[in-house]
Amino acid sequence: MSNQSQKKPQTAITPTREENYAEWYQQVVRAADLAETSPVRGCMVIKPWGWSIWENVQRGLDGMFKATGHKNAYFPLFIPLSFLEKEAEHVEGFAKECAVVTHHRLEAGPNGGLVPAGPLEEPLVVRPTSETIIGATFAKWIQSHRDLPLLINQWANVVRWEMRTRLFLRTAEFLWQEGHTAHATAEEARAETMQMLDIYADFAENWLAMPVIRGEKTEGERFPGAVETWCIEAMMQDRKALQAGTSHFLGQNFAKAQEIQYQDDAGNREFCWTTSWGVSTRLIGGTIMTHADDDGMICPPMVAPAHIVIQPVLHKPEAKAEVMAFCDRLIEQLRTKVYGGRVVEVEYDTRDIRGGDKTWQWIKRGAPIRLEIGPRDVAEESVFMARRDKGPKEKESLKASDFVERVPQILQEIQDGLLAKATAFRKEHTRVIDTKEAFYDFFTAPETGENQPAPIHGGFALAHFNGDPALEEQIKNDLAVTVRCIPLDGQGLCDDEGEPGTCPFTGEPSAKRVVWAKSY
Amino acid sequence: MSNQSQKKPQTAITPTREENYAEWYQQVVRAADLAETSPVRGCMVIKPWGWSIWENVQRGLDGMFKATGHKNAYFPLFIPLSFLEKEAEHVEGFAKECAVVTHHRLEAGPNGGLVPAGPLEEPLVVRPTSETIIGATFAKWIQSHRDLPLLINQWANVVRWEMRTRLFLRTAEFLWQEGHTAHATAEEARAETMQMLDIYADFAENWLAMPVIRGEKTEGERFPGAVETWCIEAMMQDRKALQAGTSHFLGQNFAKAQEIQYQDDAGNREFCWTTSWGVSTRLIGGTIMTHADDDGMICPPMVAPAHIVIQPVLHKPEAKAEVMAFCDRLIEQLRTKVYGGRVVEVEYDTRDIRGGDKTWQWIKRGAPIRLEIGPRDVAEESVFMARRDKGPKEKESLKASDFVERVPQILQEIQDGLLAKATAFRKEHTRVIDTKEAFYDFFTAPETGENQPAPIHGGFALAHFNGDPALEEQIKNDLAVTVRCIPLDGQGLCDDEGEPGTCPFTGEPSAKRVVWAKSY
Repeated sequence: MSNQSQKKPQTAITPTREENYAEWYQQVVRAADLAETSPVRGCMVIKPWGWSIWENVQRGLDGMFKATGHKNAYFPLFIPLSFLEKEAEHVEGFAKECAVVTHHRLEAGPNGGLVPAGPLEEPLVVRPTSETIIGATFAKWIQSHRDLPLLINQWANVVRWEMRTRLFLRTAEFLWQEGHTAHATAEEARAETMQMLDIYADFAENWLAMPVIRGEKTEGERFPGAVETWCIEAMMQDRKALQAGTSHFLGQNFAKAQEIQYQDDAGNREFCWTTSWGVSTRLIGGTIMTHADDDGMICPPMVAPAHIVIQPVLHKPEAKAEVMAFCDRLIEQLRTKVYGGRVVEVEYDTRDIRGGDKTWQWIKRGAPIRLEIGPRDVAEESVFMARRDKGPKEKESLKASDFVERVPQILQEIQDGLLAKATAFRKEHTRVIDTKEAFYDFFTAPETGENQPAPIHGGFALAHFNGDPALEEQIKNDLAVTVRCIPLDGQGLCDDEGEPGTCPFTGEPSAKRVVWAKSY
Repeated sequence: MSNQSQKKPQTAITPTREENYAEWYQQVVRAADLAETSPVRGCMVIKPWGWSIWENVQRGLDGMFKATGHKNAYFPLFIPLSFLEKEAEHVEGFAKECAVVTHHRLEAGPNGGLVPAGPLEEPLVVRPTSETIIGATFAKWIQSHRDLPLLINQWANVVRWEMRTRLFLRTAEFLWQEGHTAHATAEEARAETMQMLDIYADFAENWLAMPVIRGEKTEGERFPGAVETWCIEAMMQDRKALQAGTSHFLGQNFAKAQEIQYQDDAGNREFCWTTSWGVSTRLIGGTIMTHADDDGMICPPMVAPAHIVIQPVLHKPEAKAEVMAFCDRLIEQLRTKVYGGRVVEVEYDTRDIRGGDKTWQWIKRGAPIRLEIGPRDVAEESVFMARRDKGPKEKESLKASDFVERVPQILQEIQDGLLAKATAFRKEHTRVIDTKEAFYDFFTAPETGENQPAPIHGGFALAHFNGDPALEEQIKNDLAVTVRCIPLDGQGLCDDEGEPGTCPFTGEPSAKRVVWAKSY
């Protein structure tokens, strides 16, 4: 074992979550080889280990989209400025963060270097989202009611020029999927909006082991141009909320702006009802902040780049061939097993570096299962297993054949355990609050020394609310706390879930408790 | 059957290949629902049927890349102008076709509309290829010889501002993969370059059923900044060559421009040797132009969005339930079968439109197998099968159980038949040519009436060449013919393949025959 392990409780990540959560996050992303900043302001490089998580996210979601009748397509990266301008709220919402292409070549400048040349007649915006360009296409594709519903999804990169960026959580360029659908009736479009919200919640919980609350956004947090914005909200380990996905009921706003019309049975031209919905690489940030600990990343098995890392212990040259042959056989057997729709993925780490360094690298990367296999294991036909959801020193020796047989079950145990732990954490830090004073207390950090980051505090407050945007603004200014969502009923958030009550800030009636929190 | 089918030899696509090849291509792309032009100049919309082919291309290639040790990652969309300028030939090669981002927001202009605002300090180029931005990252990732080889691939969109665009073949934005690798020695980098060339050839032939010639580009056709550019070249049905993929040995050019260095065993800092290689959505254009006929697209089964289309024949209301139950059972059985690493994909077309229209839609889209199933088929437990590689009227009745059993084999027969046909076509139109006169004859179109497109003529000429760029330029000016590649030996192109000879244009010695053709 390395020095690091002997010196425990020293942690692999410095600082710890308690010491400085924001910095801890950056260090986990770095230490786990997930991503790094790039020389291009606000754009990230997603490294192979992080990219592989994204591939698994894509695989999982794509399967769910296709199973519900959606088809993938691809639309242009660029949006003519005039398209963006068609929906007034929409362009207002995105104008401040658009990367604008104005030229289509480079030529030698007066000082020797190259300068932009060939000005475009109309500037092009790098898509921040694609409602307008996809809407223009839908207007061509849809003629009759027989063309409806039109259910399209796109996997793509988008750009929103952000001033303060953070790997995965907020970057100028990010990767996402954006679903865009058109329907004959408002009811159908609403049902689609809710179906996709449910798919996102299902995926977050069962693939990312990240419990989420489904609910509607208040007016101030609505997508620019939407009639209703629904979201899934997750609690991170600093008890802040992360908006992890959104599903928008767009009404006929975009259909009218772009003339997306169909002819009904009677021959009348009617406007369609449209939806859009998206999740992004932000989900990886959410997964990190839900599960990682002070030793680094913990990958939920459903999206782990590798399920199992095998480290052969090759100190004795005379035993090397035997150990490696044993590992080869083991890998072959493991690859006959399937977990989460994927053949069990084994990383066989034969690099000639110090065992302790290797061990800690895989702990920091968060591989769910690590096996150390040396001459004694070969002799006993056993494997020495460490699970990332347990302490780094809790190891277990298992018959190799039993391990192979049980591997899908062990992975599911880890997956379930992560969800249970995150669900318990959220429950622990969710409070039913009925007075303004208790609310302000809940969200006010305890005093700390100068230049110390505020200790982790607060959480989700379930409090009544009269719905007044001015009050929400006031609370935001006072505490940096906002309504994360007006939750759907039936999520088991509290005993009087969904029942009317009294707004603790105004004494006015409130339809139901809403979820308040600080957020990313 | 529809009117169209009764009136045969009328074709589903107008004009035919012979009548106007370029227009035929556009019409096939349109009729097969593969892609369409977008409101953004030069950018295409890839429709679901076309996108699904791309997903299969990605799946196939990605598996091959991973099996050879490559890992996927993701790098920024934008490249700072100063990065592009680091490699002189490279920037010169791309300067004329760069989309340039100069502003990062929009604001109200003097005339009411929005105008670009927030000028960037340094303009950003939308990546036309990523050698420079990935190289900058490699320089950080690589420290010691233990970090080598570094084998990275990226699936991404790129932009090259083209003046004359053509769906799939040449578009301003296109999708591709770009592999980038770094090695300790020139030998290793060369071996990687050739390995990827072979993978591309393997994929083109065994997945796209598109025979290709592997060879090296002449100096004039080399990738800007490369030491050697290798390519796969395919013959389209107008007998022109399509460059379908390239693999570049970059020497130390980019490593020196970007300081990609490693420390060797002795502690010396050495420059790496790098490669890059890519194929793009152009492969879909190549697949269309290799296989489609005057009735539309023919999808090679390995990349077909659906292997089988089932059209229930539901004229008799009393038989409807029975027919649909039969189809459901059949689909269930078919989905237990695997072809090309994929569960057999069935499209069940129950739309209430005229049977003839439906039939012709699937013929134009090129689904490999079409089944019509009516009450008689149910009674006889049979299926009525039409194969897209045969005439539209050649149908065959098969026992349903036999069909299910044989389906992977039938698909492979179609796949093999397409490759054999394309290989025969290439052979038929490849000529060994030893005189200048015969060469000029071969590439000169027969006379046609005024305003008539030139009839299809020419093909691949295997002729000796002294290697003089001026001569190549002359022939290009005379005939629009260029050296497509200096072929690798052992491809069975002609009897004296790889042997030295005499250049027919100059009488000078020639190392070997090269491939001449008109090209896309």
